[in-house]
Amino acid sequence: MGDYWYSEDQMFGSIPPERLLSTPGLELAREMIAGKLPAPPMAKQMNFYMSEADEGFCAFRGTPLRDHYNPAGVVHGGWAGALLDSALGCCVWTQIPVGKAYGTIEFKVHLVRPISDKTGECICEARVVHMGKTLATSEGTIKTVDGKLLAHGTETCAIFDPLKR
Amino acid sequence: MGDYWYSEDQMFGSIPPERLLSTPGLELAREMIAGKLPAPPMAKQMNFYMSEADEGFCAFRGTPLRDHYNPAGVVHGGWAGALLDSALGCCVWTQIPVGKAYGTIEFKVHLVRPISDKTGECICEARVVHMGKTLATSEGTIKTVDGKLLAHGTETCAIFDPLKR
Amino acid sequence: MGDYWYSEDQMFGSIPPERLLSTPGLELAREMIAGKLPAPPMAKQMNFYMSEADEGFCAFRGTPLRDHYNPAGVVHGGWAGALLDSALGCCVWTQIPVGKAYGTIEFKVHLVRPISDKTGECICEARVVHMGKTLATSEGTIKTVDGKLLAHGTETCAIFDPLKR
Amino acid sequence: MGDYWYSEDQMFGSIPPERLLSTPGLELAREMIAGKLPAPPMAKQMNFYMSEADEGFCAFRGTPLRDHYNPAGVVHGGWAGALLDSALGCCVWTQIPVGKAYGTIEFKVHLVRPISDKTGECICEARVVHMGKTLATSEGTIKTVDGKLLAHGTETCAIFDPLKR
Repeated sequence: MGDYWYSEDQMFGSIPPERLLSTPGLELAREMIAGKLPAPPMAKQMNFYMSEADEGFCAFRGTPLRDHYNPAGVVHGGWAGALLDSALGCCVWTQIPVGKAYGTIEFKVHLVRPISDKTGECICEARVVHMGKTLATSEGTIKTVDGKLLAHGTETCAIFDPLKR
Repeated sequence: MGDYWYSEDQMFGSIPPERLLSTPGLELAREMIAGKLPAPPMAKQMNFYMSEADEGFCAFRGTPLRDHYNPAGVVHGGWAGALLDSALGCCVWTQIPVGKAYGTIEFKVHLVRPISDKTGECICEARVVHMGKTLATSEGTIKTVDGKLLAHGTETCAIFDPLKR
Repeated sequence: MGDYWYSEDQMFGSIPPERLLSTPGLELAREMIAGKLPAPPMAKQMNFYMSEADEGFCAFRGTPLRDHYNPAGVVHGGWAGALLDSALGCCVWTQIPVGKAYGTIEFKVHLVRPISDKTGECICEARVVHMGKTLATSEGTIKTVDGKLLAHGTETCAIFDPLKR
Repeated sequence: MGDYWYSEDQMFGSIPPERLLSTPGLELAREMIAGKLPAPPMAKQMNFYMSEADEGFCAFRGTPLRDHYNPAGVVHGGWAGALLDSALGCCVWTQIPVGKAYGTIEFKVHLVRPISDKTGECICEARVVHMGKTLATSEGTIKTVDGKLLAHGTETCAIFDPLKR
């Protein structure tokens, strides 16, 4: 469990630990979408936001900018990685039992088409593939609004008791 | 090949395509380290920079901030992903033949310890594992300055003729 | 391109290179399913066979035995890996242009439930996710006949001109 | 914990559960190397064997045969996958606390050069990268006896209490 922090404008920050422990992940995710909870600071850096959450499912939308470029003048692979990791983790969050915490232990990203500041808004969708007691896996895609595949990946999350760590 | 772009202060940007095509990657990497070429914009967002480059090797240094937090109040897995992808790609860059381009096609990240704004400066080192004509693989680690392992991963890059794409 | 070899009973072996180069992969896959071409020797070791092939899709069926056990008395992770790699590669094969060859460059396997000799017949299905000119990606699952997920994974294949290698 | 089984000649089989629970993994691995414990059945199918074990390290040797070929007349990617998974898991085994069990939860394999029945004996070495209480990661390579790299990969293992499962 990390520490609790808000940006000055209260729009970005982490979720208070007592809420993380007492409220179902899906409910928190929906509060975040509704703007009742701050969005994660990383989402600001990466210019994306969670747009949808359901049982075992999550979607993000984001627009890559020149701020996310690599030396070769295209969007850095880390942008797709951060977007996928967000959705791959949040879809697991929607099914975590109350009182449990979770964290990414590994993820793999396939980058299948270059992304630039001309790509426009991207949609990242992720689904839980396996939900166990201590481990979960998920898979997801990043597509343009026209449905062209840009990247995809899979992830493993650990599910644990935050009070025992 | 992406497009060429500089930030207003000229400190961040992409490398002019004609230089990318005519200069060995290792030379460009060293110019970037010396501040003679702009750093990639993504490096600013992620607060890291390339610190060392050699034949088949590359190191980055970076400090994770609250700006990189996820909803649980720790650093987002995408930060380690972006840092590793930078180093895993740049070590390949140092061995790309002049006139060729390269791009990440997939990477996998293992997150073995949580990272927070108390972690301090991190060192990411990456090495080429296999250098082929059209494909290369690399491996890398992220450690604290005290040598504690935080994350590690591997990557596959495609090597191609940018004029034929 | 490898060398051409048949088992004594002609039931297992590789496909003659001239056929590999002149016939669409999907046609060859269907001949293999129909028993008109030998099955790969590895399929005998692993006790699985291709059961279905379509555009961008492939299914295998196999039954894990004690012959595939690891020291802990369950089926070795390599069994699921070999089964997944077979299907993840063959679904790409169904879309490879005539005259081109392909090969796996990397694959990742998630093992989500233990497999034993009591698991019975397993079904492995795989689909092409991205089909490019020189690279393709695919994803697949292994399930029991009752639909319980045992393993899943993704793969990257290289597509190349076998005469230029 | 799987079930206990021996081949008729007692050379291949699984390790009795009571020994698995009461003896350090490194000790069991060394008994297996010395021929005092049966080798895993999968090792027979794949024609490889454990040759060395130390704290956080493990080596296997194996020779790929035509029995391991894919339809294209080269060794199936599953052979390298099974060999790597063996070593990537066994190096973790050498550091598992007595009374705990472990299992692979995911592995990734990079295939960097084709393998055939002319490749001859191969050496697979693996090392623990991170050893935690409930999760461990490892990395390994497959090389020819001349040191030419054929494949490499990483793995995540779960460490658990076998009596609570």
